[in-house]
Amino acid sequence: MQCVNVELKERRYPIYIGEHLLTDSSVYPLKSGDKVMIVTNETIAPLYLETVANTLKRIGCQVDHVLLKDGEKYKTLDSLNQIFTALLQQNHGRDTTLIALGGGVIGDVAGYAAASYQRGIKFIQIPTTLLSQVDSSVGGKTAVNHELGKNMIGAFYQPITVIIDTTTLNTLPKREVNAGLAEVIKYGAILDYPFFEWLERHIDNLVALNQQDLQYCIARCCQIKADVVAHDETEKGERALLNLGHTFGHAIETHLGYGNWLHGEAVAAGSMMAAALSEKLGDLTHTDVARLEKLFARANLPTFSPDGMQPEDYLPHMMRDKKVLAGKLRLVLLKTLGQAYVTTDSDPTLVLEAIRACTQAD
Amino acid sequence: MQCVNVELKERRYPIYIGEHLLTDSSVYPLKSGDKVMIVTNETIAPLYLETVANTLKRIGCQVDHVLLKDGEKYKTLDSLNQIFTALLQQNHGRDTTLIALGGGVIGDVAGYAAASYQRGIKFIQIPTTLLSQVDSSVGGKTAVNHELGKNMIGAFYQPITVIIDTTTLNTLPKREVNAGLAEVIKYGAILDYPFFEWLERHIDNLVALNQQDLQYCIARCCQIKADVVAHDETEKGERALLNLGHTFGHAIETHLGYGNWLHGEAVAAGSMMAAALSEKLGDLTHTDVARLEKLFARANLPTFSPDGMQPEDYLPHMMRDKKVLAGKLRLVLLKTLGQAYVTTDSDPTLVLEAIRACTQAD
Repeated sequence: MQCVNVELKERRYPIYIGEHLLTDSSVYPLKSGDKVMIVTNETIAPLYLETVANTLKRIGCQVDHVLLKDGEKYKTLDSLNQIFTALLQQNHGRDTTLIALGGGVIGDVAGYAAASYQRGIKFIQIPTTLLSQVDSSVGGKTAVNHELGKNMIGAFYQPITVIIDTTTLNTLPKREVNAGLAEVIKYGAILDYPFFEWLERHIDNLVALNQQDLQYCIARCCQIKADVVAHDETEKGERALLNLGHTFGHAIETHLGYGNWLHGEAVAAGSMMAAALSEKLGDLTHTDVARLEKLFARANLPTFSPDGMQPEDYLPHMMRDKKVLAGKLRLVLLKTLGQAYVTTDSDPTLVLEAIRACTQAD
Repeated sequence: MQCVNVELKERRYPIYIGEHLLTDSSVYPLKSGDKVMIVTNETIAPLYLETVANTLKRIGCQVDHVLLKDGEKYKTLDSLNQIFTALLQQNHGRDTTLIALGGGVIGDVAGYAAASYQRGIKFIQIPTTLLSQVDSSVGGKTAVNHELGKNMIGAFYQPITVIIDTTTLNTLPKREVNAGLAEVIKYGAILDYPFFEWLERHIDNLVALNQQDLQYCIARCCQIKADVVAHDETEKGERALLNLGHTFGHAIETHLGYGNWLHGEAVAAGSMMAAALSEKLGDLTHTDVARLEKLFARANLPTFSPDGMQPEDYLPHMMRDKKVLAGKLRLVLLKTLGQAYVTTDSDPTLVLEAIRACTQAD
């Protein structure tokens, strides 16, 4: 088992990473008599709900659960309200603990519910997808979507513990494992060139779910993100680097409708657009761009704009992104592989050319 | 003009209290070019929306507004979503400022919207009711109701400035002025005996809206609450004292349905129940209880349980209160006038007797 400690101004919490942690009662910060509400979805429940509930009952907790529908389109205020209703119907007070068991959607909705229920209750995350293990389990970003924009409603709210059982990845669809690898590759590209090289050597093992490499990889990603977040809890500066490819990616997700491309897939294509722009600005070499593209491709990820989406379709969506400040597009670009920066004065013509460079002719 | 500074761990903000502040551009912490969204309701808008908007336009701000329906029953996730929709439709980014113009409901909903929109934007409060001026403008509690419980969903979120224009009380229904005085009297009863005595001398002036006494009174209440909140931002200890009468009061509001009794009216009757219990415990004298009752009565406030509500109707509602910890009822009681304390081991039989003492025979 590996442990990464996230150190924040007001609090610290551990991320445990290992095999078969769902049944390891020693990693749960709970005691006999504690009330717990598990939030999960209809896909995860048959796989892991009973396992987790039994571990908690062994500790002596009183365990309730609420099942959300599976999918990004249920990341809504309505699902949030479903959690509040369950908490109130089962008389959960301010001293209860909410457990998110599932992927990023469950983590985001349950985390925001924990932040909001009676103005804040304790929260434990058990992410079961690679994406949520390397991304949303660190940083305290919680949110639901609004019909006019993704992640527009939420809070910064930290869990008390994150429990990552890497064996849960064995039941995850391959396409989602790959989408998670998009964020993994992103960490190497923006902040850690040695890790980028490690990925070039181990990406096939990760795709094949080698447990040892997975644990190293997840711990490394959590550590990178934890370091960034510790410096910048509410995303004023350095944390923005983590959004490489995300502004382009959100445009893709919004244009196609949530859930047609996976988030990681949109981030992969979006990162290639950021890389193309970085090359046009004379920072990345053509070889760098090709190395990044190859890594994404080996993880079976898209490196081009979706079929039928025109370069002109991007900017209106991008201008509505949360990262827009005072009407200025804020993009994360690469100086070199392993070193990203944020800019607010990109030339819209160049941005369009970079998108075009990642658009395949019909 | 009076100014009370609220000093919190991470930040401080001023509360300005005076006549005609709505049109005083110097109290708004905004500059030319800032985007602003005013949240108000259909009752307040015809009275003050244009006044505030014009002041902001004089500063050079870009001003939008959103109108909610008036009333506690609109303190919902739906109203919250209406604010998000307006913000997104008008392309408000993370750097926008939300202004709550109205009473406690507007402040609570808009404050929670500000806490949640893009995970937090700047927030200014302009409370236009006495209750919101002395209570919800300090402390950062924001919330909406759930059909199973009041204020169950929310956040702790601080404004950057509070602007209290006491002349707005001239358009407030008398019944609401009186309801605000319930919270004013509460401050004296729990923490400030000299202020309690001041109220015994000036309550008639306050009922008559004497501007000078109102300003002193509001500033004093804000200062008392600011001191309490500074010690206890997230309501773990001392802050609970502010809830004198509230657990009984919430039971009344829930039983009657939101909005039949005003919050302050329920707090007045609830405070008398707490006082009756304190007398039964041998802390308050009969004279103390009578002085408290007289002060409420001079402000035309109810000091008895609503007609038709039975003493037995209270406990089920009270046990669902946010202040319940580990299944234990947590009540604020009085040692003497001006000194409150919190207890979690009240005898249910005595609680019922206290409620009965405040119930009029049919």
